[in-house]
Amino acid sequence: MSNTLFSLGLGIGTKNSIGNWLEVYYPQPLLNPSVDVIEAITSSVDYQGGNAVIELTPDIWSSIASKLQSIDTELTAKVAPFKASTQPTVATILATDEAPTSVPEGYLKLQLLSHRLVKPHHVNLDGLFSVLPNVAWTNRGAIDINELPQRQIEARLQGEVIDVMSIDKFPKMTNYVIPSGVRIADTSRVRLGAYLGEGTTIMHEGFVNFNAGTEGTSMVEGRISAGVMIGEGSDLGGGCSTMGTLSGGNNVIISIGKECLVGANAGVGIPLGDRCTIEAGLYVTAGSVVTVLDDAGTAVNKVKARDLAGEANLLFRRNSVTGAIECKTNKSAIELNEALHANN
Amino acid sequence: MSNTLFSLGLGIGTKNSIGNWLEVYYPQPLLNPSVDVIEAITSSVDYQGGNAVIELTPDIWSSIASKLQSIDTELTAKVAPFKASTQPTVATILATDEAPTSVPEGYLKLQLLSHRLVKPHHVNLDGLFSVLPNVAWTNRGAIDINELPQRQIEARLQGEVIDVMSIDKFPKMTNYVIPSGVRIADTSRVRLGAYLGEGTTIMHEGFVNFNAGTEGTSMVEGRISAGVMIGEGSDLGGGCSTMGTLSGGNNVIISIGKECLVGANAGVGIPLGDRCTIEAGLYVTAGSVVTVLDDAGTAVNKVKARDLAGEANLLFRRNSVTGAIECKTNKSAIELNEALHANN
Amino acid sequence: MSNTLFSLGLGIGTKNSIGNWLEVYYPQPLLNPSVDVIEAITSSVDYQGGNAVIELTPDIWSSIASKLQSIDTELTAKVAPFKASTQPTVATILATDEAPTSVPEGYLKLQLLSHRLVKPHHVNLDGLFSVLPNVAWTNRGAIDINELPQRQIEARLQGEVIDVMSIDKFPKMTNYVIPSGVRIADTSRVRLGAYLGEGTTIMHEGFVNFNAGTEGTSMVEGRISAGVMIGEGSDLGGGCSTMGTLSGGNNVIISIGKECLVGANAGVGIPLGDRCTIEAGLYVTAGSVVTVLDDAGTAVNKVKARDLAGEANLLFRRNSVTGAIECKTNKSAIELNEALHANN
Repeated sequence: MSNTLFSLGLGIGTKNSIGNWLEVYYPQPLLNPSVDVIEAITSSVDYQGGNAVIELTPDIWSSIASKLQSIDTELTAKVAPFKASTQPTVATILATDEAPTSVPEGYLKLQLLSHRLVKPHHVNLDGLFSVLPNVAWTNRGAIDINELPQRQIEARLQGEVIDVMSIDKFPKMTNYVIPSGVRIADTSRVRLGAYLGEGTTIMHEGFVNFNAGTEGTSMVEGRISAGVMIGEGSDLGGGCSTMGTLSGGNNVIISIGKECLVGANAGVGIPLGDRCTIEAGLYVTAGSVVTVLDDAGTAVNKVKARDLAGEANLLFRRNSVTGAIECKTNKSAIELNEALHANN
Repeated sequence: MSNTLFSLGLGIGTKNSIGNWLEVYYPQPLLNPSVDVIEAITSSVDYQGGNAVIELTPDIWSSIASKLQSIDTELTAKVAPFKASTQPTVATILATDEAPTSVPEGYLKLQLLSHRLVKPHHVNLDGLFSVLPNVAWTNRGAIDINELPQRQIEARLQGEVIDVMSIDKFPKMTNYVIPSGVRIADTSRVRLGAYLGEGTTIMHEGFVNFNAGTEGTSMVEGRISAGVMIGEGSDLGGGCSTMGTLSGGNNVIISIGKECLVGANAGVGIPLGDRCTIEAGLYVTAGSVVTVLDDAGTAVNKVKARDLAGEANLLFRRNSVTGAIECKTNKSAIELNEALHANN
Repeated sequence: MSNTLFSLGLGIGTKNSIGNWLEVYYPQPLLNPSVDVIEAITSSVDYQGGNAVIELTPDIWSSIASKLQSIDTELTAKVAPFKASTQPTVATILATDEAPTSVPEGYLKLQLLSHRLVKPHHVNLDGLFSVLPNVAWTNRGAIDINELPQRQIEARLQGEVIDVMSIDKFPKMTNYVIPSGVRIADTSRVRLGAYLGEGTTIMHEGFVNFNAGTEGTSMVEGRISAGVMIGEGSDLGGGCSTMGTLSGGNNVIISIGKECLVGANAGVGIPLGDRCTIEAGLYVTAGSVVTVLDDAGTAVNKVKARDLAGEANLLFRRNSVTGAIECKTNKSAIELNEALHANN
């Protein structure tokens, strides 16, 4: 048996009435667990190697808890109660970072991201959409969509209501983990699998998809599409848009550098370097023709916005007299021409 | 007694403390029910013809269930339990599609829409706003707003909280029906009375008002205003706006044809034909003066956007050098002039 | 003992496991309470003057209720049940409008605002952010973030889930007060401390921060930033933005006059006078250079938008042929020049 693993999750989850997993909650997922932890778990469960999802009985949880006690008291405190669970429990063991092939595997990977154990783009999520079921997320937990009408009628007879908050393959993050040092004004706007750096505030109009997020401190009032990362100290203004690879017209992954500001109701379809600003209300797409200004404010050149991808210290604005999209730089005309040619 | 009906709903609902209806849930509303179903219901209840709302007792539900059993087992399974309800139950019988005059009638019509039994604009909703009460939608169901403070205090004394999710005349759709083949990331954004075609995904930033929706497959990350329909295969980008007749400056009903794309943070104030695109960030209002380009990209004419209403194969963009709103077509200059003149 | 007070609140709240306040609900906060009410309360509790937060026992609530009975029956009906509370209860007495120094004080002030007892900018909220803790707002009430994982596991073992709706210093308003004559389609979009005038509708895309709101009737489908007030009869179109002092580039407090319309996806970075319109999709920042047109539509001058702050009867639009931001006025060229010079 290998003494290294990619990841290990001890979880408690929900199945539908015919025994299919709907979701799994891992209170403390592990990345590259220690040899001692691996030994404590694999000696208790029937692990045959590879990537495995092993459902567990109360007896086994007692065994795991007693072996884990001296190794990781925090983890033990979280999983020891599983022996009394009325719900299905599971050990998900990932020897390697293969594409997920089951609900418990997919949920483990999403929780690795939101626990900040792996960064977006650094875990294999291939085929995740087809692995995850579409679930009704309710005030009574995850419910199979097909079983919902009967449950709703039963609740109604008692004068209660099943509140359906989401019909989606991805639950909201905060019912699984709340990373330290964040505020999320409306949690329905952050999917499980989001990566939120310490010091991030997601305001009511903010949104973060899975496999996306913030490196560190950020005020986010705009939308972070799947795959997009926002650098330390950058802010997204209210209602602003980062173009996603799922919805946009190209396959370039958008990212935002450090200390940038994307203004309210603005949008960006290119990767931004550090200390860039996009004026409120301006949408810069990759194909926008941009008039580039030097440090004196003189027009030097016209380029497609995609040619400015990754450049630092740019200010994008729409000239309110001529209507042209301009990019103000902090470079002289000579420096600017050299830089633009270097991109060609 | 007529042997045809416009609609029939068997429901369970909520009343306030003085006996006024707040809302009604119909697990399986019927459009043009069969003669057999009509006979099973009307022979059990005191129906005098016309449009009627008839409250029912446990005995009558037993009678209805026994008569329905051989006619519609699915419906029977849903309403047979009503005999044990602690909540008021009702048979709402609509002989004709008159303007709704009561809460049970209004709720039946909204549920016909969301069950895809009728399409937006094809059911009479005149005066609906004045018929429906403003309700507090909570984790304990519908509560009369005036009764909420007392209920909140009672809950607080027990260390509980009544979570008020909405104060509105319209509840969210998903607590009444989840049509097949849809995802709705944040259900608070889809009102009862929305019509969502099979294959529709409403992302977190999407929104669908009542009497509005999608014909078929659509990715919706923008707002579908009351009355607006989106054609098969069309996508609405994040935060985009369709101008509603309630809020806009005109009374033209906006619609979007097939296979269109309205970009992120864009907006549209005219009906779009098939295969049209509006660039991210561009708001085209009916009064916008648009420079029309032929298939070679040459400016041919200037028209108001409303003159392009319903035309297919248009690409709207703002020229990022001149600031002009342009409409690129796939027609030659000659074809274009003919088409534009035909509109006059 | 003084016989005047700034405010008095009798509340029931939530503490974490080590006895720190998380939040307090005041069913009927009082501004400048009557001498009789002051006497009834201060003679029952150990009040030493100044601003004080006094936790109360069941006995004291019986005393308060009996003394209040003949003075304010409505208030008595609300607080008499507190004697049976399982939760901590409190009398918060504010002799003066000092900066809040505790959670009960901060919550009292926010509730004064949302009860329409004080208007935004008319109550001292200095330092509020540092006074209020970041709280997990759940379907089981307020929970200390650090205590949430353990609570979540316990719920999971029973097949239940703690739904975390918000991680924020500010709760949503509607779990504390629903002012008369409002609709709020998605209550997660209105923070406690918002001031909503009678006749206000906040649609799903609307948002209102604390210390901000509407003077009277308004249809709000856009975002009202902290500090911003909207005049009677003004509407905010879907997704529109009012620039906040927290996020914007200046420290001018934005306000909107009476009978204004800010169009869908538009934005405003200057205070607007009465009867102004901003075209859908146009963002006017303080630094935008605006071409001013007279009542005949002739360009008269170019000014920064900030120079038009507070002027009435302006229509802002982007010329869809030239791309210039224009401001159409109802003044003659001569009147206009005089008015613009007066601003200098």
